[in-house]
Amino acid sequence: MNNAFMQEAIRLAVENVRSGKGGPFAAIIVKQDRIIAAGANSVTSTNDPTAHAEVTAIREACRALNTFQLTGCEIYTSCEPCPMCLGAIYWARPDRVYFAATASDAAGAGFDDSFIYEELKRPHAGRRIPFEGMMREAGLEPFRAWVQKDDRIRY
Amino acid sequence: MNNAFMQEAIRLAVENVRSGKGGPFAAIIVKQDRIIAAGANSVTSTNDPTAHAEVTAIREACRALNTFQLTGCEIYTSCEPCPMCLGAIYWARPDRVYFAATASDAAGAGFDDSFIYEELKRPHAGRRIPFEGMMREAGLEPFRAWVQKDDRIRY
Repeated sequence: MNNAFMQEAIRLAVENVRSGKGGPFAAIIVKQDRIIAAGANSVTSTNDPTAHAEVTAIREACRALNTFQLTGCEIYTSCEPCPMCLGAIYWARPDRVYFAATASDAAGAGFDDSFIYEELKRPHAGRRIPFEGMMREAGLEPFRAWVQKDDRIRY
Repeated sequence: MNNAFMQEAIRLAVENVRSGKGGPFAAIIVKQDRIIAAGANSVTSTNDPTAHAEVTAIREACRALNTFQLTGCEIYTSCEPCPMCLGAIYWARPDRVYFAATASDAAGAGFDDSFIYEELKRPHAGRRIPFEGMMREAGLEPFRAWVQKDDRIRY
């Protein structure tokens, strides 16, 4: 844990708001005590709803390291990750995540993402965005193609 | 619900495996009965752990429509979304999601993402990727900058 790295993430988040680039969130990724990537929320300025701080930083770190796995890296994020970013972090597999503001602090500032977790408890059809299953049998074809492949890379 | 759109998503998922571009997943996005974007898993071929089918399709649809919100759109995905993609879908706000294979089918083929939801039930420090809070007070600064801004765009 290194306060200077978190201070930098927080500074970027403040700067991101002031510059008008996006929401009050930023993250940096550190490997062997060096910052290898930084990201700030740029949803509105880049028209990309997936451009949250952590996702942006993870994509940049992976580009920098030429890999899709962040083993040996740590993420410092100005705020506890939303469900999308939490998922992205698990797929990227860094060693550890440090966060400053909590999800509840974010909710207090109007950024309440807990509804996404709540949706999971509802039946598919009753969700805010309805989910509907169809053609399940045909949907197994890609998996059949996958298991027949010898050189598949697992992630 | 239109079977031809789902069939196209499934076809792209099979093709994605055969071409070696990535895992057995694809999604398409439809607006007013027209396909406006397609995405397939390209995690390993693009070194981007966030390049799942739905995220890729959402990013492409938003680029095509020049917006960060997919109101009026429907997503057809070959498989029920993982936690990251579920979050991305909620932030993108399409009208509806259709899926073919279920999360349990995916788990049966070796793609089990339920551990991510399970992690949420654990205390931060005891997670597979440990989460650790620090400098919470400083972490509120970006929110203070945010609420002082008059022209903030909410998303």
